[in-house]
Amino acid sequence: MGSSARFNILGIGNAIVDVVARADEAFLSKHAMHKGAMTLVDAETAEAIYAAMPPGQESSGGSVANSCAVAAGLGARVAYLGKVAADQLGEVFGHDIRSAGVFFPSAPLTGVVPTARCLILVTPDGQRTMNTFLGACVAFGEDDVDEALVADAAVTYLEGYLFDPPAAQAAFRKAAAAAHAAGRLVALSLSDAFCVGRHRAAFRDLVSGHVDILFANQVEVCSLYEVNDFVSAAEAARQDVSLAALTRSEDGSVILYGDETVTVPAVPTQVVDTTGAGDAYAAGFLAGLTAKQPLAVCGRLGSIAAAEVISHYGARPEADLKKLAKAALG
Amino acid sequence: MGSSARFNILGIGNAIVDVVARADEAFLSKHAMHKGAMTLVDAETAEAIYAAMPPGQESSGGSVANSCAVAAGLGARVAYLGKVAADQLGEVFGHDIRSAGVFFPSAPLTGVVPTARCLILVTPDGQRTMNTFLGACVAFGEDDVDEALVADAAVTYLEGYLFDPPAAQAAFRKAAAAAHAAGRLVALSLSDAFCVGRHRAAFRDLVSGHVDILFANQVEVCSLYEVNDFVSAAEAARQDVSLAALTRSEDGSVILYGDETVTVPAVPTQVVDTTGAGDAYAAGFLAGLTAKQPLAVCGRLGSIAAAEVISHYGARPEADLKKLAKAALG
Repeated sequence: MGSSARFNILGIGNAIVDVVARADEAFLSKHAMHKGAMTLVDAETAEAIYAAMPPGQESSGGSVANSCAVAAGLGARVAYLGKVAADQLGEVFGHDIRSAGVFFPSAPLTGVVPTARCLILVTPDGQRTMNTFLGACVAFGEDDVDEALVADAAVTYLEGYLFDPPAAQAAFRKAAAAAHAAGRLVALSLSDAFCVGRHRAAFRDLVSGHVDILFANQVEVCSLYEVNDFVSAAEAARQDVSLAALTRSEDGSVILYGDETVTVPAVPTQVVDTTGAGDAYAAGFLAGLTAKQPLAVCGRLGSIAAAEVISHYGARPEADLKKLAKAALG
Repeated sequence: MGSSARFNILGIGNAIVDVVARADEAFLSKHAMHKGAMTLVDAETAEAIYAAMPPGQESSGGSVANSCAVAAGLGARVAYLGKVAADQLGEVFGHDIRSAGVFFPSAPLTGVVPTARCLILVTPDGQRTMNTFLGACVAFGEDDVDEALVADAAVTYLEGYLFDPPAAQAAFRKAAAAAHAAGRLVALSLSDAFCVGRHRAAFRDLVSGHVDILFANQVEVCSLYEVNDFVSAAEAARQDVSLAALTRSEDGSVILYGDETVTVPAVPTQVVDTTGAGDAYAAGFLAGLTAKQPLAVCGRLGSIAAAEVISHYGARPEADLKKLAKAALG
């Protein structure tokens, strides 16, 4: 992983505040929401959904930002780049990620465009359906990628959702190039099957040409390679990247490294809200990897972090993750 | 209770957004916080505490606003007056109370003063220590009391915390006068023993001269009358008001009505977070009273609502309260 780095992980993603409320299936149907998916909405639609939503709870979110908070909680040295606005929700986002121990140098966007928010409806089965208004995130571009910071992180970790705001794709490529020029690694999470569907060609190109470590669940990886079975998708990923960690919900994860295949069980828990499960898994995995742990331990750290996050509402950890990891790994 | 009213309950209180984070005892000591109390802080102190606080979760709060959400959840027709700013946290507050079914006509304050927030530290023992920056609430005054609305509510319910912002005391007196002029009732919650200590003389004057229904826990009522035993305090309250509902945590509540005394047991539950217990009790009680239920049923409704609210984090209800009440009362 090149020379010793100031940061273990530099995350780059959409800086979002979550608004979480409980809803029944009828609410999803009435608002034509695709259960379990992340849908992009414009300001007007976001306002209409919010007006119809039950009372909510606000907390910082964003897929890779969640991962950064989890990885910092596990003791990794973590930095994050993402664009908030200079408003109250932007202050909330900045406070929460910094107080989780993450270095967050991005300057907030001034003007009328507000901080991004994700309106999340949690149904009684624990599934979350997300409606994202990208707000200030659309202003994140190449200029926001500090190449010196990228060069100073062992792994630069990017979220698939970053493909949605157009300027971020260029930022993504710049970050990947800077990482590789410095002898560092690039990791990518596919984020969401619908997001993969929106940007499949760009994803395929990036995964095969610029990504070292791929995170995806089974639906996402099948969507990426347009195949129906997990085994074929996994083998395609094995050809594309040096390292892939593919999650399968309660069936745990499969790690592919060259010819090697490591299977890791899930950590059983009472599922309250699955939001952030994949984010937490990737965080645990990368925290382990950058601490030079064996792949089985990396996967196990991912499972432990995911179990903590899905055992309560919200995508950021509540328990002492270091203690949990120590108890599980000895 | 006069002629039939458009609203069962009109709540008037400080419109506050809660920011909740976990902290240990050392954090409280370091910031010289009085554990379990509500302390008023200025903008600068609020900022310093927030900067030092761990990641938080935001949700709407405010004592009487919480009561209004609970009472609406029980099927009461409820209105609320309180001052938020025209900012994002103000929008969150407005959304949450309206989507709980409460009529909230107050115009937001424009300018630089932000919506009030309460920085809440939850220690491992489940206790909450609150630091309130009143923000826009200090602008709530007589002009914000719509006398026609007061006249159209069977009970106008005011929170003790409203004594902290100076202009609100005048608003309080105007509301009480308007309610009585229309043949309606005035209810008051003492809110907090420290708040009673800050404003004892004003409270004593109001309770004896302008309040029909008094809510307090045993510490608050003892503080009001400066006595050490609950029985003496309760008898003093009996002399001052027509109706008093005094809560005693797991020992339930005692309702005093003229010479009558009704004792009501608490509803057993797994206590997760006691915040909002008193707010919920008052809501259940007033929902029952304005539906012309016997006092024992009013108290029982209070106990049911309180049990729901203390069984999870946060002071607003999560379960279907109507269903809970129906199951308990038949």
